[in-house]
Amino acid sequence: LLASIRASAQSDPLPSWHDGAVKQAIVSFVSRVAREGGTDFVPPAERIAVFDNDGTLWAEQPLYFQFAFALDQVRTLAPQNPEWSGRPPIKAVLDGDLAALAASGERGAAEILTATHAGMTTDAFAASVAGWLASARHPRFGRPYERLVYQPQLELLNFLRSNGFKTFIVSGGGVEFIRVWAEKAYGIPPEQVVGSSGSVRFRQAGNGAPELVKEPKVEFVDDGPGKPVGINRFIGRRPILAFGNSDGDLDMLQWTAAGPGARFAAILHHTDAEREWAYDRQSHIGRLDKALDEASAKGWTVVDMKRDWRSVFPSEP
Amino acid sequence: LLASIRASAQSDPLPSWHDGAVKQAIVSFVSRVAREGGTDFVPPAERIAVFDNDGTLWAEQPLYFQFAFALDQVRTLAPQNPEWSGRPPIKAVLDGDLAALAASGERGAAEILTATHAGMTTDAFAASVAGWLASARHPRFGRPYERLVYQPQLELLNFLRSNGFKTFIVSGGGVEFIRVWAEKAYGIPPEQVVGSSGSVRFRQAGNGAPELVKEPKVEFVDDGPGKPVGINRFIGRRPILAFGNSDGDLDMLQWTAAGPGARFAAILHHTDAEREWAYDRQSHIGRLDKALDEASAKGWTVVDMKRDWRSVFPSEP
Ligand SMILES: [Ca+2]
Ligand SMILES: [Ca+2]
Repeated sequence: LLASIRASAQSDPLPSWHDGAVKQAIVSFVSRVAREGGTDFVPPAERIAVFDNDGTLWAEQPLYFQFAFALDQVRTLAPQNPEWSGRPPIKAVLDGDLAALAASGERGAAEILTATHAGMTTDAFAASVAGWLASARHPRFGRPYERLVYQPQLELLNFLRSNGFKTFIVSGGGVEFIRVWAEKAYGIPPEQVVGSSGSVRFRQAGNGAPELVKEPKVEFVDDGPGKPVGINRFIGRRPILAFGNSDGDLDMLQWTAAGPGARFAAILHHTDAEREWAYDRQSHIGRLDKALDEASAKGWTVVDMKRDWRSVFPSEP
Repeated sequence: LLASIRASAQSDPLPSWHDGAVKQAIVSFVSRVAREGGTDFVPPAERIAVFDNDGTLWAEQPLYFQFAFALDQVRTLAPQNPEWSGRPPIKAVLDGDLAALAASGERGAAEILTATHAGMTTDAFAASVAGWLASARHPRFGRPYERLVYQPQLELLNFLRSNGFKTFIVSGGGVEFIRVWAEKAYGIPPEQVVGSSGSVRFRQAGNGAPELVKEPKVEFVDDGPGKPVGINRFIGRRPILAFGNSDGDLDMLQWTAAGPGARFAAILHHTDAEREWAYDRQSHIGRLDKALDEASAKGWTVVDMKRDWRSVFPSEP
């Protein structure tokens, strides 16, 4: 008996998902599109699955992890940039003056992102992200940020890939930031990461070596209507499965759900203040309002973190 | 003996390539990077190969095939667009006045591309490309354009993939044009096609269905320095093999060749007026001048079509 229980537990591809309607909907969809000869069969090449990143594949509180990186970079790079002290939002970071930082609003945030994400080669930027990930720890959990990925989603990504899906990230976050660690964290290679980006320029360095330099100019915002546009631009094929957690994912979910044949649209609802966070309609980060209403109207799958997930983060920190 | 000759012929992954230094260089590079434990070993995830399209994977004379499509589209769509007769470059096409068309220059060409490549949904555009490919025939060869792909390159793409490479197109041509047929023609799926693109807008159609509409605005030119930029944007990883045929590929070849470890940079030199075309330094289409000099200076592989290719196009038209 024990052996049989063990075998059954091992054969469950989603052990961190509680049994219930949500898990059943996922397993049913995947087996239907993968069943050759079935009415919902989808050829492997068309099994495209897209996932939002912040708040869908990893946590996003108390602030987007990429913004935590930017704040740490301001502190790291300040000694080499004495002129920064004359720039109010940057000074606010250096002074630890969170009120002043908040008062600087979107423009202040953009100034901090530009200062820390431009003016270096793509290789140098990737190295700075890797260095930060190796040393930074999340304020609440004390873990490396990479270990605040969601265990149930790692299982889902693997389950999809083992059923012939190609898994993509479609994130409002910066593509050059995510690509550094997505392969290790999620098994998603750089060429399957779609995200926001700044301009990049090709040039010959002083020694004649070609290099790519990140410029202080936003090129593409992969959020809201930018998500289906980004999917079209980078993937060139409409997904059959989309997973998000906020209103920024609504257009992507609509675009995915409106295609012909079997479709799966899902939203992760953050309902677990104890193990993670609880937030939705009023949150500044990951606001989930219109998309929650539309999910209910359209019958999309809403994952209730507290109810549907047996565990949230990987057990090994 | 006969059986052994047959076996040996069957085991040659590149039967349309003549034996010689070029073929040997290709086979040697692939086996070195794929040999586990060897000094030039490259993990499969990093075996990225990029190919220019026009003049590298398929022919490009007497004019870029996408431009032949655009000219045919002008004729097809003219009855629904009577106001076009007031636009000189379009009128020149309708009148078959090639001198007037040529006189309209780059701006005229851009006007024709815009008229035929914008103002419709991405789905409608893809359908028009598919319809054209099914009916159009190349003026010299009388074949469908899709059957003017290069047989030796099809073998090379397969050889690379069977050795763990991921093959990408990086083309100055339009990404929405190429993606329609690249999977069937080359085994390269849409998400592995990088190209030039126009802006695309997401909107709700009258019936509430979401759609993507192509707008009359160039968004990205994937040519020259745009090629390494496009590689960075779409692939996010530096290739280890790049193959081009013109000066528009020079930056991509430099970017590829300058990376660490084993690298392969190759140029297809059109030297075969009998079976295809012969052109290089003076050509308006696919000009190969600086890149030919740099190939010689840097020791890149130059494929001489006449010398190195046993056949040019697939035997089945
Ligand atoms: Ca999110
Ligand atoms: Ca070319």
